[in-house]
Amino acid sequence: MTTHLEREIAEQPAKIEALIRDGLGAARDVAARIRGHGPRFVVIAARGTSDNAARYAKYLFGLRQGWVTALATPSLHTLYGAAPDLRDALTIGISQSGRSPDVVSVIEAGRGQGGLTLAITNDPSSTLGKAAETVLEQRAGPELSVAATKTYTTQLATLAMLSACLSDDGGAIDELRRMPERMAATVDAAASLGDHVERYLEGPGYFTVGRGFNYSTAFEIALKVKETNYVIAEPYSPADLLHGPVAVVEAGFPVLAVAPRGRVAANMDELIAKLRERGARLLIVADDADRLAQADVPMRLPTGVPEWLSPLISVIPGQVWAQKLAVARGFDPDRPRGLNKVTLTL
Amino acid sequence: MTTHLEREIAEQPAKIEALIRDGLGAARDVAARIRGHGPRFVVIAARGTSDNAARYAKYLFGLRQGWVTALATPSLHTLYGAAPDLRDALTIGISQSGRSPDVVSVIEAGRGQGGLTLAITNDPSSTLGKAAETVLEQRAGPELSVAATKTYTTQLATLAMLSACLSDDGGAIDELRRMPERMAATVDAAASLGDHVERYLEGPGYFTVGRGFNYSTAFEIALKVKETNYVIAEPYSPADLLHGPVAVVEAGFPVLAVAPRGRVAANMDELIAKLRERGARLLIVADDADRLAQADVPMRLPTGVPEWLSPLISVIPGQVWAQKLAVARGFDPDRPRGLNKVTLTL
Repeated sequence: MTTHLEREIAEQPAKIEALIRDGLGAARDVAARIRGHGPRFVVIAARGTSDNAARYAKYLFGLRQGWVTALATPSLHTLYGAAPDLRDALTIGISQSGRSPDVVSVIEAGRGQGGLTLAITNDPSSTLGKAAETVLEQRAGPELSVAATKTYTTQLATLAMLSACLSDDGGAIDELRRMPERMAATVDAAASLGDHVERYLEGPGYFTVGRGFNYSTAFEIALKVKETNYVIAEPYSPADLLHGPVAVVEAGFPVLAVAPRGRVAANMDELIAKLRERGARLLIVADDADRLAQADVPMRLPTGVPEWLSPLISVIPGQVWAQKLAVARGFDPDRPRGLNKVTLTL
Repeated sequence: MTTHLEREIAEQPAKIEALIRDGLGAARDVAARIRGHGPRFVVIAARGTSDNAARYAKYLFGLRQGWVTALATPSLHTLYGAAPDLRDALTIGISQSGRSPDVVSVIEAGRGQGGLTLAITNDPSSTLGKAAETVLEQRAGPELSVAATKTYTTQLATLAMLSACLSDDGGAIDELRRMPERMAATVDAAASLGDHVERYLEGPGYFTVGRGFNYSTAFEIALKVKETNYVIAEPYSPADLLHGPVAVVEAGFPVLAVAPRGRVAANMDELIAKLRERGARLLIVADDADRLAQADVPMRLPTGVPEWLSPLISVIPGQVWAQKLAVARGFDPDRPRGLNKVTLTL
């Protein structure tokens, strides 16, 4: 039986290709509006998977635009009635459905104060789409699985495309255009992960670790594993893991490390060495044979992908792992128990 | 045998009292400098427990000063060589030891760009203390347990005192002066938690949940449990928990809810009701008899504490729980395996 989740994972390359083709013009227009406004920092309101896309944006806008990016505190708006000063900010709301009231409330505050607002959503006709001054559409199509996959990667690609347009960087757009092919190669390589899941059906839970651009990937893979497999999976940066929680890691404890080539790879290697000393079982997402050789479960990525775009591929083996593990356990990954697609929390 | 951890938990009221008495003048001076500079937003660099104090500051400065507060991305500075624009920011580094190189690098970037910088540290003669233009000393004294307790609450109190001075709010200072007595009452009430730990020696891990000001408390209690008991404990806001990870919660799964009276209490009550439906075992930190009556383990707080100062007391039952659970398991909570007091990660 093919699940919606499996189909939607496989759809990602085509969705990103269409997004770049059909969405680049809108991204250029929005980038021009943002440049005209000249924000001093960025605030992003989002929940769940979209919040992990916001974590990616912290590094993307920080490195490429030089903008500090803050994750919003929606309860200040909805419960304490005290929106902070957003006049100098670009305030972005990210929501697949566009129906999260707390995300909408942050956008309304930013617009009400005269700051520039942007909605990134799969439904431009949603409350969020209407609340924001500018909108970028994810173009992911309907997502039938409760666990988000293509709506995550289309959010990443929308942010990456916007960043490239903000710096008017044609080379970056060209790199982005090469990603669908690399994503397809990643989906193909991940098919063999099914060979490993039998050894992971029992266990106390996972840590996932990533740094820099792929800090977001560690969060998103942990979320997929939790949503579909009902086990705890907690995301960390290497520094935060070593600053306390590593005490939990004993022989056989599974740790999934997101470690493609790039500026943070040496730091990830140090962590991997420490985790091996403690006897952890390592699942490693990497594009380097030496790094993969250290894994109990190697999760292979194609080579040659720039680090700032690597989150578009590095999340895929984690999505596939969560899906295959759930099916092996006899769970329905499309309908996790007790979850709804839209959380209407104030 | 009394552990350092137990002694240091009990020392907290006296340390906060001394901090307010001896540190208020410095806080007033730093507040005047900050007001003169007129920052448009705040950036905080911190790791581990100090990062949880930074989470408190997001709500503190957001509500009381109207400042958006971003958690820094140290790897942008140390690994990518690309500090974002900090000229309009108040950049704060929080580190008990003052020796975290990545925290120091963010402060150096802010100061180098001409932005205002502040170190909050237990050691003003440390690298961090010297790197920042202004310093506030935690005055916690030497902390012998690896798990931080009094260095956490003195960070919270330093931030609260600074916020009160920034708005020149004498009533807020008066409220802060009442906290040591309330903290002592909380330590006393927590002594009875030892009656419950036997039923919690086995289990898959914990979720901890808090919102608004006590989102930080959920993070810090989870960290104490992980550091000293080698079990997974993952912190959430109610919205983020319901947006996916709640799928993990089945009958008997322990969830610790931080729910003192205040603006977020009704939201926490909704969550508690949903968790009860799923059969979760609830540990509830609260000052309200009805809320405590729903708990498998009631963790009682004194009444009458304003919500913005409640994190100074609401973390204490969690500290005591982690300590008593570790001792009952036969672990040494003062020296968690594989941990160092200072993490020297770049």
